[in-house]
Amino acid sequence: MWSKNHKPVLEIDPGDRVTFQIHEVTSSQITRKSTTSDIAKLDLSKFYPLAGPVRVAGARKDDALAVSILKVGTADWGWSAVTPGLGALEEFNEPFLWTWKLSKKNWVNFKNGLKVRYRPFCGVMGVAPANDVPTEVMPPGFHGGNMDIRHLTAGSRLLLPVQVDGGLFSVGDVHAAQGDGEVCVTAIECPGTVTVRIGLVKGANLEAPHYFTAPEGTVGRSYVTTGIAPDLMDACKQAIRRMIGEVTTIGGLSREEAYIFCSVAGDLRVHEIVDRPNWVVGLMIPQNSFGPVWKKLVDHRTH
Amino acid sequence: MWSKNHKPVLEIDPGDRVTFQIHEVTSSQITRKSTTSDIAKLDLSKFYPLAGPVRVAGARKDDALAVSILKVGTADWGWSAVTPGLGALEEFNEPFLWTWKLSKKNWVNFKNGLKVRYRPFCGVMGVAPANDVPTEVMPPGFHGGNMDIRHLTAGSRLLLPVQVDGGLFSVGDVHAAQGDGEVCVTAIECPGTVTVRIGLVKGANLEAPHYFTAPEGTVGRSYVTTGIAPDLMDACKQAIRRMIGEVTTIGGLSREEAYIFCSVAGDLRVHEIVDRPNWVVGLMIPQNSFGPVWKKLVDHRTH
Repeated sequence: MWSKNHKPVLEIDPGDRVTFQIHEVTSSQITRKSTTSDIAKLDLSKFYPLAGPVRVAGARKDDALAVSILKVGTADWGWSAVTPGLGALEEFNEPFLWTWKLSKKNWVNFKNGLKVRYRPFCGVMGVAPANDVPTEVMPPGFHGGNMDIRHLTAGSRLLLPVQVDGGLFSVGDVHAAQGDGEVCVTAIECPGTVTVRIGLVKGANLEAPHYFTAPEGTVGRSYVTTGIAPDLMDACKQAIRRMIGEVTTIGGLSREEAYIFCSVAGDLRVHEIVDRPNWVVGLMIPQNSFGPVWKKLVDHRTH
Repeated sequence: MWSKNHKPVLEIDPGDRVTFQIHEVTSSQITRKSTTSDIAKLDLSKFYPLAGPVRVAGARKDDALAVSILKVGTADWGWSAVTPGLGALEEFNEPFLWTWKLSKKNWVNFKNGLKVRYRPFCGVMGVAPANDVPTEVMPPGFHGGNMDIRHLTAGSRLLLPVQVDGGLFSVGDVHAAQGDGEVCVTAIECPGTVTVRIGLVKGANLEAPHYFTAPEGTVGRSYVTTGIAPDLMDACKQAIRRMIGEVTTIGGLSREEAYIFCSVAGDLRVHEIVDRPNWVVGLMIPQNSFGPVWKKLVDHRTH
């Protein structure tokens, strides 16, 4: 659960580097020896253990945490499952568990020669919401959280809008690999470690998380605004509006010009459609398209 | 308009190569000298002129046309516009026109140093629907049509489910560049030419277009199933179900395994959210993930 009342495990200064040890998403209810019959026995109340929270000195509402992901490591195994009642498709009525060997090379083998690119990231990164009562981890929100954005690999940088004093950053749910959408509701779930450097951007005034992707990403370095909503079209519109905001204020374009730039240079990607009730969409524009504006964007958003 | 009653301009044998000269989307109502004041005067009934139809000998319902895009060329200019009432956002109430110089190099310059990758493709490629009455070009459908899939650049291959005898392939709406989503409703619109080789896959039995992307694409060579629906979530589900179908029948996986493979290796991309009332979503899996199954997939789908 997210809560502004959780006692910080650590207080840091902006710019400090922190390494987190992270349990897999079921809190070790699934192990490398589990089988499909274990799926039905899972206690959902134990899902989403978070590492943290870390309090960042000086962080106030309207600031943003600039979280540079320096390193993500995984155990040598992981799992994926089909879980009836979860996932994008309703026609799967039988549970199914698959366990993976993670060789820490570039690829993870599946079967019949199929394989998946090894690109570990954390499915959950966020700050504590301002709510008085604890907030479930499952749906992501403007505080970030369970966004399952597969592009947040090492080398990327996530901007999180601070909601309460100190930010109270937590992290969890390591994924060894995942596609945009996470359609069956699981990625390659695994225990792992992540090292981040947490900067503070005063007065960032973000409505939702934005991010810079990693240079080694499949699409190269990019800047992404997000939309988070229970309706995919609404989420798309949010992401577009936020990018128009960036391109007008930082790039100096009119709103109409910025809208056109989003249409011809930006890619809408469905980051997740399974973390009910909120879906996450990103509007992604590559660094090269920003030309000299890229540097202004980075300076403005992460100084 | 699409119509099965349009007289073919050409009859070809499967495997023949055809070059089309293509007007821009307004039928030359916008020229390189147009200004914003011309937007309000546009006669929408003249939009979407199609080049074709081409009749493919032997094509029957349940077959697919395998359209290899060999070359796409553009004029040395193009335009984009904000058009009130169209596009993803409702808050734009004033028209705005931007004209582009297309240098035919890798990049198209915008302003303030911003630029867009030059990657021309055809926004419209399709076969005649089986309807007795003519069908508007605006919304895409299972016959393909105005899908605005930016990944269909030279080197890619589009599979179109034949609806009527001879297929009746037409093409239109050249775009010099566009992002996934085409959020303001225009890409870089321009006149152009396209050369395709049209193959015939007997008994393909596709429900919707599938495609192989170009090797020079931003994500490398990939295979993509599409979903086309008035609701984005429904379109996502369609695309996932179709990929599960491919991975089970061609890759030999169980349905549960295929669902997991889609979740960890496939990316949901919103190809367009502006061609009312139908949005197009693609589930995209890279060639490398298919391993040795890639060859089977290509053989099965394009032989």
